[in-house]
Amino acid sequence: MRRKLFIPGPTEVRDEILEAMSIYMFGHRSSDFSELFNRVVPKVQKALYTGNKIFLATSSSTGLMEASVRNCSNKKVLNCMCGAFSDRWNGITKACNLECDQLKVEWGKAIKPEMVDEKLSTGEFDAITFVHNETSTGLMNPLEEIAEVMKKYPDVLFLVDAVSSMMGVKIEVDKLGIDVCLAGVQKCWALPPGLAIASVSEKAIEKSKQVTGKGYYFDFVTMLEKYWDKSQTTTTPTITHIYALDKQLDRIFAEGLDNRFNRHLQMANYVRDWANQYFEMFPEEGYWSNTVSCIKNTRGISIKDLNKELGNRGYTISNGYGKMKEETFRIATMGDLTLDEIKELIDLINEIAQL
Amino acid sequence: MRRKLFIPGPTEVRDEILEAMSIYMFGHRSSDFSELFNRVVPKVQKALYTGNKIFLATSSSTGLMEASVRNCSNKKVLNCMCGAFSDRWNGITKACNLECDQLKVEWGKAIKPEMVDEKLSTGEFDAITFVHNETSTGLMNPLEEIAEVMKKYPDVLFLVDAVSSMMGVKIEVDKLGIDVCLAGVQKCWALPPGLAIASVSEKAIEKSKQVTGKGYYFDFVTMLEKYWDKSQTTTTPTITHIYALDKQLDRIFAEGLDNRFNRHLQMANYVRDWANQYFEMFPEEGYWSNTVSCIKNTRGISIKDLNKELGNRGYTISNGYGKMKEETFRIATMGDLTLDEIKELIDLINEIAQL
Repeated sequence: MRRKLFIPGPTEVRDEILEAMSIYMFGHRSSDFSELFNRVVPKVQKALYTGNKIFLATSSSTGLMEASVRNCSNKKVLNCMCGAFSDRWNGITKACNLECDQLKVEWGKAIKPEMVDEKLSTGEFDAITFVHNETSTGLMNPLEEIAEVMKKYPDVLFLVDAVSSMMGVKIEVDKLGIDVCLAGVQKCWALPPGLAIASVSEKAIEKSKQVTGKGYYFDFVTMLEKYWDKSQTTTTPTITHIYALDKQLDRIFAEGLDNRFNRHLQMANYVRDWANQYFEMFPEEGYWSNTVSCIKNTRGISIKDLNKELGNRGYTISNGYGKMKEETFRIATMGDLTLDEIKELIDLINEIAQL
Repeated sequence: MRRKLFIPGPTEVRDEILEAMSIYMFGHRSSDFSELFNRVVPKVQKALYTGNKIFLATSSSTGLMEASVRNCSNKKVLNCMCGAFSDRWNGITKACNLECDQLKVEWGKAIKPEMVDEKLSTGEFDAITFVHNETSTGLMNPLEEIAEVMKKYPDVLFLVDAVSSMMGVKIEVDKLGIDVCLAGVQKCWALPPGLAIASVSEKAIEKSKQVTGKGYYFDFVTMLEKYWDKSQTTTTPTITHIYALDKQLDRIFAEGLDNRFNRHLQMANYVRDWANQYFEMFPEEGYWSNTVSCIKNTRGISIKDLNKELGNRGYTISNGYGKMKEETFRIATMGDLTLDEIKELIDLINEIAQL
């Protein structure tokens, strides 16, 4: 049974995009593919406000999180940790045997610029990992303020996980000086999972040239120099997803980027107002995410039962992440969802939970 | 314009599978996904004649080639090289900073069991990489004979790239003692690219536990122990492909595994007979691949022009790989193609090249 997804990935995919996933196959070393590549890449650059090269990875976002630390550090990585996904980046860095240190705040609290400044002033680091939007806690870190601090440290690469914010929140990659800005397509891009996207700066590519042991599959240099000029990917890509991405980019520009970002904010505001009336927002005030609201279950209702009832009516939300199950729940306002659909959902929750 | 693919990947995908790619999304941490996972995995095990766990990777086959050496060696890898893809595995091993040595034969020649035996008898190695079917040269290495040798070396992990043979040639993983048997789905599986599959032995998982620096995305232990019990994948998978794989497995079993493998042999025999009449087979006799025939262009025809003419009529074959372009050409007999379709293609080539 098909259910409308208000979970933070995968998100609802519109029928015309699902239909585009049926595209017949063609060779990934053919001119047909290169034409597709040359159509898609400039559109992705426009959507990310960047002239940087674009890495199209047949992987989940986690693959590109690993790629970015593997390619961009041969000294020490600073991992800014405030939730499950920033914790994961720290785990990945360790699993790659890379030197690292942690800047850690409580789940639900934001990473503040002065904290980053203090750590980086030691001169120990050549890269920082930073999760823009923590899907686990519904917290949006202050990207612009952190970017200001990063300008003091031009030798430290700025690696940003924008997994659950890219295409839902304006991220001006070049203006902010982001060296690697990465996401999967199953969140605000509103495509089925299976493709991840990163913009990669020249500085990051140059760094990668000095790094050994980074492997082949996620090597920035091979992809963004050797294959880039041929308008191809290093290895066989998920042609289906790249074709659908091209279609989705057209839909995104037809809506307009600013309209898209505003729609996300409006949907989030509606959920926040409702949450503040009946529950409480989980994250620190002033840092609420525009794409996923994490709500404290102050009424102690059974989120599992609520979701089961919603499921019977063709809707799904998310329970809290990991250790925060039942204590919190999450409503995603991502991708191609509309304010009307959010209202429908909230009305249903009110009815089921008798609010 | 849609063209029928006789190239060694991606291969022709049948319409009902393309239609299955339009499946609506559902959560990868939901019971819907776990049910899909639990349907797919036993079928893959059956198709590979194995009780080993199955790694479903959102990546190309190259990702799993990298995974296998990263997870399975902390001593020295022996790379058996006889073409572009076995060369690639050697390059990957080096790019991962792993110790390795090479067993190298000329392109088009086979890796022989005595060569492997001699190298392994030094006791230097803890893993061997072996490409079953070299897509670049149309050569099928003697997997069974090599497997016999491997039985003398139980401490050396047997890593097999079956990228362009799996599902086109019978590979009895457990009987042959293959520790990692990997492939992408865009060859004989006849699905669109974007998913790679490997069976992984307990021995390989145990080895992985002793290895550091292997990263997170392709970690065998995390996927095959931590997430296996939840019937989930470590990170967000390409749900679309896994759904289509389930449908395709049903089609494969409806045909019958032995029938499928025989059909591949019949198609290859037809191409070989034709090639021997008008051209010459490229690889060493006795080692011709059942899934891709690499043919010496002894008549000096323009393969590029031939393919252009074929393209106009809705068909595509492959030029030679890399340095063998124009000197050779390749006809794939992979996946769901039928003998009748091969005959149609050969008739067209005869007509265009005036043979």
